[in-house]
Amino acid sequence: MAKVIALYKQPQDKEKFDEHYFKVHAPLTEKIPGLREMNVTKIVGSPMGKSEFYLLCEMVYDDMDALQTAMRTDEGKASGKDVMQFAGDLVTLMIGEEVDG
Amino acid sequence: MAKVIALYKQPQDKEKFDEHYFKVHAPLTEKIPGLREMNVTKIVGSPMGKSEFYLLCEMVYDDMDALQTAMRTDEGKASGKDVMQFAGDLVTLMIGEEVDG
Repeated sequence: MAKVIALYKQPQDKEKFDEHYFKVHAPLTEKIPGLREMNVTKIVGSPMGKSEFYLLCEMVYDDMDALQTAMRTDEGKASGKDVMQFAGDLVTLMIGEEVDG
Repeated sequence: MAKVIALYKQPQDKEKFDEHYFKVHAPLTEKIPGLREMNVTKIVGSPMGKSEFYLLCEMVYDDMDALQTAMRTDEGKASGKDVMQFAGDLVTLMIGEEVDG
């Protein structure tokens, strides 16, 4: 499996972030062709206490080809454009491949 | 589900990192009581090209109580001690809760 991983830092206004994330961004992202799974994790802290991070989202595709194809679709571009507009200063995007256990 | 997430920056010596990670650290971590799943993702880049990150590991527990209990076991402490020794300068640890989709 291949994944796009989006890691967001703590937003200044969590309520406003959540509103946009769950009502606009997630629905846009779920429309991306080829997306197999979308897993969202709220970061609640770290073993040492606080965390500078707020949310982690993993978007799973069958393989790297499917992921690359998906990112070039209109839906993929719309999701990418939206994230840069509402959280460009908070998000780190990564592309990864699952290691079989 | 509750998760411990470990995000590692690019190591200087990837071969040495992998050797310790997969032969020592992962087996130590898999022994933690209550651990339901351990998912490792190798970061291969970002939509913009390179990534400062190298590896993401998610350790999944039934709930936050199970996670907190697990971290206080001898096996949990051994895994935590090991990660700080071999990658203390590379790792960011987070605790998170999965958002139901």
